[in-house]
Amino acid sequence: MSEVIRILGVDPGSAATGWGVIDVAGARLTYVASGVIRPKRKAVRAEKLAQIFSGLSTLIDEFKPKEAAVEETFVNASPRDALVLGEARGMALAAPAHCGLPVFEYAANSVKKSVVGRGHADKTQVEAMVKVLLPKCGAPKADEADALAVAICHAHHGGMRKLEAAS
Amino acid sequence: MSEVIRILGVDPGSAATGWGVIDVAGARLTYVASGVIRPKRKAVRAEKLAQIFSGLSTLIDEFKPKEAAVEETFVNASPRDALVLGEARGMALAAPAHCGLPVFEYAANSVKKSVVGRGHADKTQVEAMVKVLLPKCGAPKADEADALAVAICHAHHGGMRKLEAAS
Repeated sequence: MSEVIRILGVDPGSAATGWGVIDVAGARLTYVASGVIRPKRKAVRAEKLAQIFSGLSTLIDEFKPKEAAVEETFVNASPRDALVLGEARGMALAAPAHCGLPVFEYAANSVKKSVVGRGHADKTQVEAMVKVLLPKCGAPKADEADALAVAICHAHHGGMRKLEAAS
Repeated sequence: MSEVIRILGVDPGSAATGWGVIDVAGARLTYVASGVIRPKRKAVRAEKLAQIFSGLSTLIDEFKPKEAAVEETFVNASPRDALVLGEARGMALAAPAHCGLPVFEYAANSVKKSVVGRGHADKTQVEAMVKVLLPKCGAPKADEADALAVAICHAHHGGMRKLEAAS
C-alpha cells in the first residue's frame, strides 16, 4: 500500500484566498476539505493579511498536511497591483513554512497541464476536471477549485518535486 | 509627564528587512534597538518569508512595542519585482498585526518630510538626520536607518493624531 501524503494547495488573493486539502496514495487522490479565507472587508490591510496568515495556520493545525503547494502568480498587473497581490501571496508561502511544511510553487501552466492535460486550458475546464478527479469536492467555488488544482498538480509531480523546489 | 509609547518601524525587503524600536514621550524620542533581518540565502522563498515573519514576531515579543509603522513602498519596479517585494512587505504588515499591534503605513515622502523636513531628501540626508534625532543609534545600516526613520515619522504623526482626537 502506498504511503498517504496529505497536501495543502493554496490560491492566494488579497480579497479571497482559496485552500484545498487532498490525500495522495500512489495515483489515488482523495478530497479532504476546502474553503475560502475572506478577510473582513473593513479591516485595514495589515489586519487582513494577518487574518489570512492565521486562517492558514489554523487549518494546517486542524488538517495536518505534510506539504503545501502554491500557484506561481501570473503577473499581468500594474506594479501597484502586483505589490498588493504579493503581500497576500507572501501569507500563502510563509504560513505553511512557518508551520514547518515544505512549500512548492508551480507555474499556472503546469497546474493546468497537470489537471486538464493542456497548459492553456481555461478556468471552466480546470474546475470541471477538479470535480472529476475529486468527486467528493462537491461544487467548489472558483478559488477553492484553483487551490485543489495546485494540490493535484503537486500530487502528480511526485518525484519531480524536489527539482521544482530548488528553482 | 508624557506617556511613553514604544514604536516599531520596519523597512521591508526580501533580502534584508530593517527594523528599529524607539520610545516616544511627548516630543522626546529615545533609541531602543535596531537591526536587520537577513533570511538565509540558501533557503527557498517560502522559508525566507517565514524567517522574516518569525524574526519580527520574536523582536515584538522581546521589545513589546505598542504600535508599528511601515513605509509604503514606492513601486518603480517590474510587476515581477513588485510581487516579490510585496511578499516581503506582507510580512512587515502581518507579523505586527498578528501580534495585536496596530500597523500604520506612511508614504516615502511623508517619512522624508518628517525626518529631514523635505519630501525629496536623499537617503544620506535621512540617515544623517536619524543620527541627529537618535544619537544613541550609533552607525545604523541603511535598512536600519530607514526603519528608524519610519518609526520617527509615526512618532511625529502620533502627536498629530492626539491633537486631532482632542479637537
